[in-house]
Amino acid sequence: MDKHVIGIDLGGTKIATCAIDKLGNIRGRKIVPTLASKGQDVVISRIIQCVYDLLNESNLNIDDVTAIGLAAPGPLDIKNGLMTNPPNLPGWKDVPIVKILQHEFKLPVVLENDANSAALGENLYGSGQGVDYFIYMTVSTGIGGGVVINNRILRGSTGNAAEFGHMVINFEGPICGCKNKGCFEAYASGTALARFARQGVIEGRKSILADMIDVEELKAEHVFSAAKKGDDFAMELVRNEGSYLGIGIANMANAFDPELIAIGGGLTRQWDMFYHQMMNTAKTRLFASKDIQVVKASLDSDAGLLGIAKLAWDFVDNSLKR
Amino acid sequence: MDKHVIGIDLGGTKIATCAIDKLGNIRGRKIVPTLASKGQDVVISRIIQCVYDLLNESNLNIDDVTAIGLAAPGPLDIKNGLMTNPPNLPGWKDVPIVKILQHEFKLPVVLENDANSAALGENLYGSGQGVDYFIYMTVSTGIGGGVVINNRILRGSTGNAAEFGHMVINFEGPICGCKNKGCFEAYASGTALARFARQGVIEGRKSILADMIDVEELKAEHVFSAAKKGDDFAMELVRNEGSYLGIGIANMANAFDPELIAIGGGLTRQWDMFYHQMMNTAKTRLFASKDIQVVKASLDSDAGLLGIAKLAWDFVDNSLKR
Repeated sequence: MDKHVIGIDLGGTKIATCAIDKLGNIRGRKIVPTLASKGQDVVISRIIQCVYDLLNESNLNIDDVTAIGLAAPGPLDIKNGLMTNPPNLPGWKDVPIVKILQHEFKLPVVLENDANSAALGENLYGSGQGVDYFIYMTVSTGIGGGVVINNRILRGSTGNAAEFGHMVINFEGPICGCKNKGCFEAYASGTALARFARQGVIEGRKSILADMIDVEELKAEHVFSAAKKGDDFAMELVRNEGSYLGIGIANMANAFDPELIAIGGGLTRQWDMFYHQMMNTAKTRLFASKDIQVVKASLDSDAGLLGIAKLAWDFVDNSLKR
Repeated sequence: MDKHVIGIDLGGTKIATCAIDKLGNIRGRKIVPTLASKGQDVVISRIIQCVYDLLNESNLNIDDVTAIGLAAPGPLDIKNGLMTNPPNLPGWKDVPIVKILQHEFKLPVVLENDANSAALGENLYGSGQGVDYFIYMTVSTGIGGGVVINNRILRGSTGNAAEFGHMVINFEGPICGCKNKGCFEAYASGTALARFARQGVIEGRKSILADMIDVEELKAEHVFSAAKKGDDFAMELVRNEGSYLGIGIANMANAFDPELIAIGGGLTRQWDMFYHQMMNTAKTRLFASKDIQVVKASLDSDAGLLGIAKLAWDFVDNSLKR
């Protein structure tokens, strides 16, 4: 049996796993809900069970596995293998996830930020193929991202670089989930879009959004849907969404000067609705890099799994060289 | 005679040159005013004359020189050796400066962004010695910077990365010199500080600044001087300056996660006046990197010369290897 690595992508909503051989072929995959609200112990059990089920369903033995890669939400303490305090996994605090998985599976475990993993996957196998200087940004409930230069993730000194969502774009702006003020995420995430919509409805803005659903239940998807129907307020919100994304992109481009930026995450399902406004704003606000290429990411949720699997394989290769 | 390289640091105010041997010893240096307003041809003649004078005064022959490094203000087209349109050198547009100097001196010419050169110099020989993941920021009339990772400059795909001054910190903010709105530079540069002071005086804010000098002549140094005398408005301006710097630092740290940030440039002469406020704001706004080290750069204007000389030497070494 050819050796495989296990890739795990731990999210606030679902745990995705797959077994991948050296050539990047996915032999099997298994996805289960995270059930984050049930707390750390339950989630960790679910990760472990998911891996065993994956092996079973893929007709693999644990002996066929040579390493495990875990893509997890930041902030991480990669050096010590800890998940510090992930906002989407309530109650987690300095969890020694690497040790826990090593102990369970008796295999080397590689930990990486989920957005960095997705950036690497998207660079190697998706929209960023052949690009030497690549930025990936994911826009859904939050905004994350990764920078990959010559096939290597730009990790920063503690593994926490590329926190694009928490770059301030208006220091007098709304409070972000991270407690900072006016972060990019507080303007341009799906959560922010929904918040702007709810605010408008509550303030009595004339809009079909008020009739579509209870105001507390208003989500980004409703805004796009109303905008498609020609609702003025919803169209204004979508235009603003495009502008905010454009500001963030200009900031990233002014800081990193990438060859290509790929955007993934749930909001990109509405790509055509905001692309034009986003690019207009970005181009107006760019400094030196006169041009900037921005595309929709192509791998969807596979990006993270493929990226973390590649890192696990790199770890195996480097161990053999030692 | 040991071989030397010539380092040139071309600024809007002065042209600095030096001859440096392989070990980093400075054999001679020569500084002349740029006279930027006299236009491109005059400035280029002055660069060339400055190099010949340097050689003369240092008892060096052009045959003792093995390469020339030019640190120049961005934006640059490094691939084609062009200075695109430097804001501080009016009238320059796509000037083939590398070809011009190669033709004059019959030597290889290495071109690099001035802030990147200073970042490398400061990393190798100054405040950033031994730091693997280093950011240098210069705050004077404008704000520039460079990122050096494992002794290599992070150039970006076109050589224009690390344009920190043009990261937006308030998208509704004042117009910047680059025409973008609310750039970090439009808030935290010395020029911006002076502008805020003039605005206040014109609006009738009670302050000794109004009596110190004609309002059009008000500069950052007057603000610091008035603040030291306990002037309320000037102290408010200096506090704001610290806050703005802190916001920019948090943005850089959230994007790059550096081990150390060193700040150079004219404003750092007043380091103690803004350091505390700057760090308070930065720490409040940091995301994952819970801690951030910020120091005053130590090399002053030598940083750029030492950095560009190192790049010229690297070029020579790489040529020999080929």
